[in-house]
This record gives sequence, structure tokens and C-alpha cells, in this order.
Amino acid sequence: MRRTMLASAGILGMVSLMAVTGVSAMSPQPTDPSVAMMAQMAERNFPSGTQAVVLVAGNAPPADWMAASALAAHLNGPVLATPNPAQLGPTVNEALSQMAIPAVSQTTQPFQPPAGKPAVYAIGLTSIAVATLQAEGYTVTALNNLAPNALLKAVNQWVAPPVPSQMAGFPSSWTSYAGGPTHNAVFPAPPGAPLWETAGVHWQTPEMAAVPFSANYPDLLNLGERSAPVKMTQDLGNAVGVTAVNGIIYAESDDYHLYAMDARTGQVLWTAGPTVNALMGNPLVADGLVFVSAGDTGFPFSQLLKYDLSGGTAPLVRGLGYAALYAFNAQTGRLVWRQDFHGNAMATPIVVGNTVYQPTGGGNLWAMSATTGHVLWKTNLGGFDSMSSPNYWYNPETHAGEVIVGTSDANHVVAVNAATGQIIWTQPTNLAIFNTGMGDNSPTVDPQNGIVIQDSVVDFNHANGTCNLAVYAMNAATGQMLWSTDLGRGAAPPAYKAGVAMVANGVVYVGSPVTSTFYALNESTGQVLWSFAIPKAGPAGAGRGNAVLADGVLWLAAGPSIYALNPATGQEISQYTPGGRFGIVNPVIVGHTMYLDNSYDWVQAIPLTLIDPHLG
Amino acid sequence: MRRTMLASAGILGMVSLMAVTGVSAMSPQPTDPSVAMMAQMAERNFPSGTQAVVLVAGNAPPADWMAASALAAHLNGPVLATPNPAQLGPTVNEALSQMAIPAVSQTTQPFQPPAGKPAVYAIGLTSIAVATLQAEGYTVTALNNLAPNALLKAVNQWVAPPVPSQMAGFPSSWTSYAGGPTHNAVFPAPPGAPLWETAGVHWQTPEMAAVPFSANYPDLLNLGERSAPVKMTQDLGNAVGVTAVNGIIYAESDDYHLYAMDARTGQVLWTAGPTVNALMGNPLVADGLVFVSAGDTGFPFSQLLKYDLSGGTAPLVRGLGYAALYAFNAQTGRLVWRQDFHGNAMATPIVVGNTVYQPTGGGNLWAMSATTGHVLWKTNLGGFDSMSSPNYWYNPETHAGEVIVGTSDANHVVAVNAATGQIIWTQPTNLAIFNTGMGDNSPTVDPQNGIVIQDSVVDFNHANGTCNLAVYAMNAATGQMLWSTDLGRGAAPPAYKAGVAMVANGVVYVGSPVTSTFYALNESTGQVLWSFAIPKAGPAGAGRGNAVLADGVLWLAAGPSIYALNPATGQEISQYTPGGRFGIVNPVIVGHTMYLDNSYDWVQAIPLTLIDPHLG
Repeated sequence: MRRTMLASAGILGMVSLMAVTGVSAMSPQPTDPSVAMMAQMAERNFPSGTQAVVLVAGNAPPADWMAASALAAHLNGPVLATPNPAQLGPTVNEALSQMAIPAVSQTTQPFQPPAGKPAVYAIGLTSIAVATLQAEGYTVTALNNLAPNALLKAVNQWVAPPVPSQMAGFPSSWTSYAGGPTHNAVFPAPPGAPLWETAGVHWQTPEMAAVPFSANYPDLLNLGERSAPVKMTQDLGNAVGVTAVNGIIYAESDDYHLYAMDARTGQVLWTAGPTVNALMGNPLVADGLVFVSAGDTGFPFSQLLKYDLSGGTAPLVRGLGYAALYAFNAQTGRLVWRQDFHGNAMATPIVVGNTVYQPTGGGNLWAMSATTGHVLWKTNLGGFDSMSSPNYWYNPETHAGEVIVGTSDANHVVAVNAATGQIIWTQPTNLAIFNTGMGDNSPTVDPQNGIVIQDSVVDFNHANGTCNLAVYAMNAATGQMLWSTDLGRGAAPPAYKAGVAMVANGVVYVGSPVTSTFYALNESTGQVLWSFAIPKAGPAGAGRGNAVLADGVLWLAAGPSIYALNPATGQEISQYTPGGRFGIVNPVIVGHTMYLDNSYDWVQAIPLTLIDPHLG
Repeated sequence: MRRTMLASAGILGMVSLMAVTGVSAMSPQPTDPSVAMMAQMAERNFPSGTQAVVLVAGNAPPADWMAASALAAHLNGPVLATPNPAQLGPTVNEALSQMAIPAVSQTTQPFQPPAGKPAVYAIGLTSIAVATLQAEGYTVTALNNLAPNALLKAVNQWVAPPVPSQMAGFPSSWTSYAGGPTHNAVFPAPPGAPLWETAGVHWQTPEMAAVPFSANYPDLLNLGERSAPVKMTQDLGNAVGVTAVNGIIYAESDDYHLYAMDARTGQVLWTAGPTVNALMGNPLVADGLVFVSAGDTGFPFSQLLKYDLSGGTAPLVRGLGYAALYAFNAQTGRLVWRQDFHGNAMATPIVVGNTVYQPTGGGNLWAMSATTGHVLWKTNLGGFDSMSSPNYWYNPETHAGEVIVGTSDANHVVAVNAATGQIIWTQPTNLAIFNTGMGDNSPTVDPQNGIVIQDSVVDFNHANGTCNLAVYAMNAATGQMLWSTDLGRGAAPPAYKAGVAMVANGVVYVGSPVTSTFYALNESTGQVLWSFAIPKAGPAGAGRGNAVLADGVLWLAAGPSIYALNPATGQEISQYTPGGRFGIVNPVIVGHTMYLDNSYDWVQAIPLTLIDPHLG
């Protein structure tokens, strides 16, 4: 959708390019007229400039021209030609200046690529010409003195690197939000895992709408410190965490694209999209397909009227634009099937066996064949879904599989029979749920104890705009409430108003954007064991994404930073600020690397030892 | 945003390509490995296929490779190479099949390019190879036997055709919605105008999200016959009419792009975007800049609560995503400045002198320097704007310029002093305005008689969902109501619930999507002179866009068809169905060509004589 790639990904690819050496020179030089024509066409194809230009010595051999055209397509930039590999000439200089991205404002603006000169990939230019470009302030990747076909091979390695498969330590599928029912997406490296997994890798890759880390929140002037950051979570960058399968990192973005990156290098393997609406979920991978759903948080005015006239009781349909579930080939990114919905499909679906389940803003849970997208059944949930991703529990006594999801208006947690679509139980709770409450948040399941954990904002005070956040546990078989705990009052947070819980070793770990504090609760009693005030949360609040437990450390991504906490006490061991800001993002840990994405539209890989030096 | 160009535009460009002849052959042939590498890179860059592929004989000279890379960028397709200009070989065949767009559904889906094989642009292939491709079902544009540089020249003519300027018959600026205060966008060809203007031209050009005319409304299954068509108007294709300036047709699309096309050929001169949100306006052109504003119709849930708790009285902010006004260079499409807003900027702004005015979903009228975007002042209108584009009237007595616009919640028509930003008058009317009423529709101004015409849905019956549409006239100097006329009851239309009025010769021409009927009213009394029941309106209703008067005929685009009516009686003279469906689209007539865009994301030029043979 938004072709504003910040910089070229695949740094490693470039290294291999630089390493190549050799010689080349054939064919007559291009005439200045042909150079001028290339410049004209570049300006038409990229009227507001580009972030990358491929500049080719016109006498380069066919294989180099092949490489140039593929590289340009990969970088979304034009190919320009030089009349002479040793000097640029006025036409080329003019063309390059036309490709600079104009500055349009003092403040950062959404989906606006940073102003400046394009990066230049110089093919077959002499070092004098390269030096000239550098002297004029261009960042140049010199691809000169290459043997015939060497450039094409190197570019091919960069644009089409091998797609990993069956990587030790990585799961081979990812069938529910945050990597499993407990939301603890941690995958230790097994004996014999490659060094990069056990040591950890460090890279960051921009997506199409990437915002520089140095920049303010987009549209801060209009939105302010309270709304600007969460607006990013909803409308720019990555809303929730990444997926790690078979050595590939998958990330969904509000830039309407799904990204597949090499977990070792961060190289973009492929990009699928644009989709019909923003992608705010956690990609699911099963049986060679990757599933992503598209939707938005909006309502048309007719729904306001309906809501008002009914005194807030009428069933609403959430979702302004089109909504759909996509299945792409997990290795190639090729579209396999797509199913459109009434109402949004923001929440991450869930895959059980060969069935994929999607709750929608239309208030239905759709069951579809994972292979074909064919609709098996549709069950009305009695409320609409917002960002509540379903979870799954298998009842060993009844042998029934339950798809468990939260709904808004009415605010319920609902368990649906995965095979028949019949509702097994509905839990309205006796809590004064506020706003989209339960339909926003993804329930957590402890399969061993058969417990469902959910939380919602409650007890809204219209007078002063404060509310509380309640965490509660339900019997997974019956929906019966086991306990509920208030985590404290504060200003009702903008946008996503809950924290995703993670359960491990009889402890519930959950944050509250109401108090910008992170908590540990006893899973059987709901008693608060400890709390950790999240630094740098800011007026937008923090604590929406869930923490994970690895190497005896609790890892939390909140606001701009990542925290290593003592899981027993909540004491901060260390913190690390990688750049950007996290939305509803949970860390994903494979071996000793943490994989994250953020609201600035970047995907990051960080060695655990960089976050917590004590581990080293 | 959505790179799904239906087919390549620029048919004339192709003709000139085909005409070129000559010979070429140099450099060694590419090896099969290099061909395989091109195929791999094409698959990575276009994982779900493309609509166009540039297939080059690997031994083509550098100038042909230059042409290939620019052509590929223009068509958003890959460059593939053949090992041998006379035969394709298995690798190329496999690569081409990978570039086919997969079929994903029985029904049309939004922003999904049609399934099928890509169009092939074959450079330097022998006619045998071309014939082979055609035998395999590919549509091939053969660019063979070209003299050195001839291909590059031809492609340059296609990708970067001359940009028209100062064209006889065309206006040199376009400063308000529908081309002027009366909304009668008609520009007769003067003596000495070129033949194509006086005779009329016929072309149609797809935009990025173009839907085939043969297709159903996208997502018809979920949305139904009533909502699916108007959903397109809001979320897909062109919401309102085009702009014609100096031989260029400008069109804004929900595909997040602004298009500039050659009025004679339909060739795309350039495409600007993606913008931060959908473009639903009528591009304005003044002083070498083209102005477009971006926004959406949505509300966050917090606004529903606010509305409900206040009993529908609280001031709302309309607009879910980011919103901005853009100024691009009118000749090149290069971004010059951008201003972001709080609340949507769906409505077309207005330019008066060196000031551009934008009403927003935040309830403000922003005044900015047209040259720099610098904000001069901001006035709260007492209600939010939806799709009400401001109009302008100069008061000869007070010498005050008035910017006149409708607002919703509260429903008002407001006149603001163009110089100071002070509100001159506010007219709430005594009518029971329903829904976003006045804030949806663009007021019409009769400068001679100092009259403002507006219409809104009124008297909503909650029991049966019916309403009326009231047209009313106000004194432009005082806002005093002169008359109001009910046009009849019917089901409240989905989405845009009004008709844009046009005034000419003391008659108000206006449609009603409530009754799907078009009317002529006496401007001084409001008396209905005649009515015309719009055929093929369907359950979505029709009559939203305004009609225009040219050559003694009233021209109306409504539903899927264009109608030529007798302006005195409303009798149908003839009708024409060009394909697609019109949203809030008014015809724009220059010479004897009608220019339109539609909800299917196409821009069309149609000779008047084709619509009304009697003219010929």
C-alpha cells in the first residue's frame, strides 16, 4: 500500500555484493538523449522522489541490466543510466536531485517518507564517479568491477535469498495469538542448534511505512501525547507481536502488508499485499499456509444513531472498511484464498486442526476450512469482536474443543464448540464492564488447570473519566467465575484498554494501561503477588502487551522499552530501549534472540544478552 | 496504495510502439542460470503475480534494457529475460505462469485484481516466439525488430508523454467543488479549438483498484444490493467527479492516489500518492498546484459513547484514520506541502485568492496559505463536516467574501468571513434534519441572485425507516430562509443521503436518493417544475451527483447510466451506459467530451454525441 520503504533491508545481502570483484565493459555508451529519457521516466514513475535509485553505467552488459531492473523493483526505485561510467554529467545530477524526497513539514507526518536524497546503488561506475556522488552527499553502494554475471548472482542472493525451512528451535506451526494458549511465546534452542540461535542475532528491518526512530509521534500536533502513540498502534506500524516459524519471522502491519523475513538476517523474503484493510494481528502458520485478517476499528454514523436510539443496547457492527481473512503460501507469499466478512476482522484468528476460526465486528464466529476458506458455519456471539483473539481449550471430560473469545456490546466471554459451532457457555460476569471491554482483549487459557483468564476496564466514572481494570478467572468447562481482582483506578486509557495476560507456573502476569503498572497474580486466588510501575509509559499508558518467561527472566515490552524482570519479585533486572514504541506487542523468544515489531513499522531482532547483560 | 492496475493505460502510446521498425542484435545471449535468477526475483517481488510482464531477449542492447526497466516500473511488473529471442524455454514458461494472478473467489472481492495471465510486453523476441506466447493464451504486445534507441524513444513517449498546458477550451484553474459556485462544469470549445475537443474523444483508463465492469459489486454477498454499491462510493474508486484544467483530467480515488491524465488520450501522466487516507474529493487546481484532501467517514467507539451519553448532542469528531490536505505540483505531481488535521478532510476544499480553506470532521474551517500550507486561522463551525464541500460568495454591498459550508451535529449552514474567519451567519433551519444531513451535502451558490441552495434528509421515521428530502434556499448575505420544498418520502438511503444541486437560468436541478428521482425547481419559489424517475437506481438509490447543462441538454450521471434530459420538461432524450456505477459524480463537459470517473475506479471520456445521437 504505502511504498515508503525507509531504507533497503538485507544488509547482509549488501555485504556479499561489496565482496564481489572482477571486470566488465562492453557495448557502446548510451547517448545523452537516452539518459535524459531515463530521467524523464524516473520522474513520472516517482514524482515525489524515492529512497533508492539504481544508477547503471549505460555500457553495462545485459546481465548487469537484468540485475539493475530486479534490484530497482525490489527497492521500489527507478533505474537511471550514466552516459559515462567515469563521470555523471548534468542530466544524471539533475535526475538524482529530482529523486530526492521533499520535506513537507517540521513535524513528522504519518506515512511520509523522510525527506532527503535517495540511496544510490551504482552499477559499473568508476570509483571516481562514486567518489563524486559521495562528495555530493549521496550514500552510495558501489557495485563496480564485477565479473560477468557476478552482479546478477549477488543481487539474486539479496532479492531472492533462500527461504528457511525446518529450523532447529523454531516451531513448525503457530496456530493461535501469541504462539499458544498461555501466550508464552518462548522456544529454547535445542542441543545442536546453530550458533546464531544460541548466541542471538541483532538486526532491524523497516517496513513500508517505517518512521525514523528519531521522529516524534506522527501528527503529534493534532493528537497530543496521549492519543498520538496509540493512534500509531491502530493506524501505523505493527499493532501486536510477530510470529516465528521454521526460521521465518512473519509480521502484520497497518501498512496493509504481511512481511516474511529471514530470522537470522532480517532480510525481507517477500511481502504480501496490499490487503483490503489494515493488518493488526499475529500471523498464524499451519500446513504451509500463513493466515492474516484485515479490518479497522471504525463505525459509520448510522451505528452512532442506532446506539443512541437504543440507549446503548442495540447490537453494533464494528468495522468501517472492507474486512477479510487471507491465506498465503507460507514459503512464497502467494495468495491461496480469501474470505470476506461483514464487520471487521482485526482480531487474530485461530487454527484448530484443518479449521480456521475468525470472530468479526459483525458479531459472528466464522469457521472455515483452512485449506480452501470454505465457510463451514457461522455462530452469532451476542456481541461484536474488536481485538479479542480467540483461544482454545480441549475439555478432556466431554472431549469437546472450545473456541473461547471475548465480545463487546454485550460484553461477554463466550465458549463455542469448535466442531458444531454451538455455544457451550456465555459468561457476562457481574462486573461493570466499560467501553468495548471484553471484546478488546484476548483471553488466556491454562490448559492444565482448565482456567480462562480475561481482563477488562470496569467501573467507569463519567464525572472524572477514570476507571479500573479487573482481571478475572473462569472455569474453562463451565465459564463459572473463579475470582476477580481490581488492579486499581486511573484515567481511562485511549484506544486498547486492557492488558494481555500470560500464565506460567500458577502465576498470572498482566499489565494495566489504566495504571501503567505490571502485575503478578496468584492463578488460583487472584491475589496480587507483586507489581512493577512501568517507566516511560507516558499519558497514553502502557502494559497492553503480554510478558514472556525465558531463562528464568520475565521479559516485557512496554512503551519505548524492553524490561527484564525478576519473575518472583517483579524487580527490574535491566532495561533496553531499541528505538520505536511498542503497541500491544509481546516479545517472541527463539534461542537467545528476542523478536519484536513496533508502532514505528519496524521488525527487530535483539540478543537477550543485550537486554540483560547478566545472562551473558 | 493498492497496486492492482487492471491493464496498462496509454493505448495511443502502444500504437506508436507498434509502428516502430528496424533491427537489433548484439551482446551474448543470457545463460539459462541468469534467466532462472530473473524468474526467482520476479516471484519474490510479485508473489501473487502481476498484470503485466516485460519479457526481454537477453541479448538486447543496453538502450532496450533501459526501456524495459522503465516500462516495468510504469506497469508495476517484473522484467523477465529469454535465453533465446526465438524460443522461450521451460524456465521462462514457468516464470510467466508464476506471474498469473490467482483466482481467490467466485465473487468479486474489493481491491482484488482479476485472476488471469499477465499481459506480456515482448522486447526483441522473434515473431515465432511471440506466436508461441499467443498460442499459450497470453496477450502480447510485440516490440520487435526495433532500431537502436527506437524502443527507448517509444517507451519514453508512453511513460513520459508531454504534459499539456494552456489548452483552448479548458479552464486554467479549478478552485471549488464541481468547477464553480453553480456546479455547472461546462466549458464550450472556442473557435479554433482542436478537432478532438469539438468532435469529442472516447477513452477509459483504469486506476489502481479498478474493478472490471463485468463484475458484481465487491463483497455483494455480505453487503447486499442496498449497501454494496454505496460502500464502493465510500471505500473504492472515485467518490465525486473529475477536474479538467489545461488539457489534464485530475481524479481522486479511494485507492489513496491522485491521477493526472491527458484529456485527449487518457494516458496517465503521473500518479501521486499513496496519501494518508482515502481521497474522496474533486481536485482543485490553482497557481500551478493541485490540492487534494484525505479522510474517512469513521468514528471510534469513544464517539459512540459520547453521543449516547449526551443524548446525541455532544459535538463529535468524524474521522477514524489520519487526515491531511496535500498540495502537489500540477504539472509533475511532486509533493509541495501537506497539512494534517484533527478529524477527517473528506470534503473538497476551496481556493479563494491565495488561501485554501478546508472544513474538517473536527468541526473547524482551516484557512491556509495556498503557497505554503501555513495555517492562517481556524474557526469552529459548531458542527463537524462530512462531505460538505464549501462554496464561496462575494457580497457586493459589504465587500466581504463568504466561505459557505454545511455542518452536522449540529446541522447548520454556516457562512464564514474568508478574510477574518469570523462567522457571518449560521442557519440551523426549522427543519427536522436527520443524520449527518447538512454536513454531507455541498451548498450551491447563485452569485447573481445571492442565493444559497442546500438540501438534507429530514423527518426521519424511526418506525419504518423512511425520511424526506428537503431542498431549501437561503439569502447568501444573511442566511435567511427563502423557501423550502419537500421532494417526497422514501427509505432512508445508505451512506450519502442527499443530492448536489446545480443552478442555471433561475432553475434548481437536484436529485434525491430518497426517491431516486431527479427534479427541477423554480429558484425563486421552490416550486417543482418537473421530475424524472431515475431508471436502474436500485435499492441503493440514485440522484446524488449534480447534473450539468450543455448544448441545451441536461446531462445526468446516476446509477450505472448517463441521461440526456430535456431541461424544460425533464423528458429523457437518450441514455448511455458506459460501464461501472457513478457515486456522487457530476459530468464535466469540455467541448463535446464528457469526463467522468466512477466507483469501479475508472476515468472515462465519452463524446456527447455517443450519449445523445441527436446532437450529431
